[in-house]
Amino acid sequence: MDPQDLLTDGAEESLSSSNHVDPYSLVARQLQRVEEKLADCTRSRESEITDIASHLIRGGGKRIRPVITLLTFEAFHGGREQDAVDIATAMELIHAATLLHDDIIDGAEFRRGKQSAYKRYGLTRTLVTGDFLFIKAFEFAGKFDETVVQWTADACTSLTEGEILQGSFNRNRTVTAEDYLHIVERKTASLFQTGAKLGAYIAGAPSEQVEMAASFGLNLGIAFQMMDDVLDVVGRRDLLGKSTGMDLRDGNPSLPIVLSLLDGHRTVSQVFQSQTPTENDIQRALDAMGNGTVIERARSFSRKYALKASREIERLPECMGRDGLRALVGLLTDRHS
Amino acid sequence: MDPQDLLTDGAEESLSSSNHVDPYSLVARQLQRVEEKLADCTRSRESEITDIASHLIRGGGKRIRPVITLLTFEAFHGGREQDAVDIATAMELIHAATLLHDDIIDGAEFRRGKQSAYKRYGLTRTLVTGDFLFIKAFEFAGKFDETVVQWTADACTSLTEGEILQGSFNRNRTVTAEDYLHIVERKTASLFQTGAKLGAYIAGAPSEQVEMAASFGLNLGIAFQMMDDVLDVVGRRDLLGKSTGMDLRDGNPSLPIVLSLLDGHRTVSQVFQSQTPTENDIQRALDAMGNGTVIERARSFSRKYALKASREIERLPECMGRDGLRALVGLLTDRHS
Repeated sequence: MDPQDLLTDGAEESLSSSNHVDPYSLVARQLQRVEEKLADCTRSRESEITDIASHLIRGGGKRIRPVITLLTFEAFHGGREQDAVDIATAMELIHAATLLHDDIIDGAEFRRGKQSAYKRYGLTRTLVTGDFLFIKAFEFAGKFDETVVQWTADACTSLTEGEILQGSFNRNRTVTAEDYLHIVERKTASLFQTGAKLGAYIAGAPSEQVEMAASFGLNLGIAFQMMDDVLDVVGRRDLLGKSTGMDLRDGNPSLPIVLSLLDGHRTVSQVFQSQTPTENDIQRALDAMGNGTVIERARSFSRKYALKASREIERLPECMGRDGLRALVGLLTDRHS
Repeated sequence: MDPQDLLTDGAEESLSSSNHVDPYSLVARQLQRVEEKLADCTRSRESEITDIASHLIRGGGKRIRPVITLLTFEAFHGGREQDAVDIATAMELIHAATLLHDDIIDGAEFRRGKQSAYKRYGLTRTLVTGDFLFIKAFEFAGKFDETVVQWTADACTSLTEGEILQGSFNRNRTVTAEDYLHIVERKTASLFQTGAKLGAYIAGAPSEQVEMAASFGLNLGIAFQMMDDVLDVVGRRDLLGKSTGMDLRDGNPSLPIVLSLLDGHRTVSQVFQSQTPTENDIQRALDAMGNGTVIERARSFSRKYALKASREIERLPECMGRDGLRALVGLLTDRHS
């Protein structure tokens, strides 16, 4: 992927529709088993850890990462469903761990429409429960061979590096499109990539197909994050379960912000760099982005990566798993929450 | 182990001396390889992570956990030295990860006689680097079978549970001897236990000997922490590399504090429960403990657990590894820093 692509036009093609397929219902039984495993493995001898993990994990979330693994496993005709359930559970645990630690880092008040664990339970307990969830993820990965543990660790390493990289561009107007892509690849797309790659690997797919799955996950993750960034500007609070403008409040360089900075947009640049933007400042910057072209361009870039993801799986033989993955791409990149 | 033992007399026997053996020099070559692996695996694409990991790992530390694994591996006549080096490295990485997270939790100013990573690099970077070190530990554990990953995860789970348990007794005068032992077993001794257990396991020892090694590590860990607690009252700052009285400052129930509370000592109880003890308060409580009998009783309890540890390995045939372990017990429980 060439990061300079970001500076050129986005996608003009549209995704072929798979709207009649519900990717979640295709793996509903396996997802139910993931839920059971999540509930089981987050039971601790210390009830506070159980409470905090439950607060987050039972508090909603789209289970996108488990669905990616489960559908990829299906698309590559995996046999032992239990294996896919274990890996899918590990991916969600890692995601949950990073959410707890991210909320500490951002001082977040809300998560999934509820008070954040950090605000409710405080720093110590939230930090430790994040560690606990990371560890549980490795228990699941450890049931498999060294490759599975190594790839899982690589994804986690990317997440930590993405967090640091994002921090270095916090409220920093020198951020480029290339920097943006590096952050997104590491902070979001790496876990999508690894979830898809592991789904194919444990299904026994040959290595070139495992790489195809990885590329699918990577591009889907980028497309997903770009759409998330768009919704932070134009989304509806009642659907999102959180306020818009969080990226401006936290000083995180989202795609609409980066595109505005590259356009030399003064209001967005000022508010983005401000250590203490007022709510009025944030609304002005959101309005500026909403009324300009950056949102349409950001949507277009998201579609472009969504198309790349879809093309990776087009070569697979027609099957339920492939249809589900294609439908998932549409669902995650043409969404309102 | 019966926690009520704490309320009865400590050890009257003394450890048989192995002072002529230096446990570190017995595994000097392997320890050097651990150092190289620690330096290698903490190199990140993000230089800040590398810097923080180096700040901590190259900033000293006794490498007790690696030495335990390396000597246990020797004591059970392990073959592939590389395996012991990998597990020893994993144990130190886990320890380092918890130090970074503990410093955030305690708001610690100093660590190993230097400014703490938390104070120097801030919350975000320190938290993320802690995660990074946990992940690297699992990369090493993942080279082995599922049992190794599971035991490693169990030790980490105990560490997180110990942290929460300790938090629930922070500045809480209702803490009992049993609570104290539960905290120490989880927060300190679990990693000693797992390091010894894994050293025996990867050496190919039969299961009853693996359990013997685990019991050795557990008791050594308890003895070590008890001595650490004593030194926080009577240690010399220049040798410790930190101030004394940290447990009172942080409100953590150390053994001398717990014994004082059980004795109904009013000064120690008041200072321990105070949210904001003055330096004068802390000195008064330290003096009270130093002048009473709690220090001698705490030392005696430490010796008792040290003896239990030593007895576990007495049954092993005479060998360099066993001599090293016996000497290590003496070194860690008859110390001044």
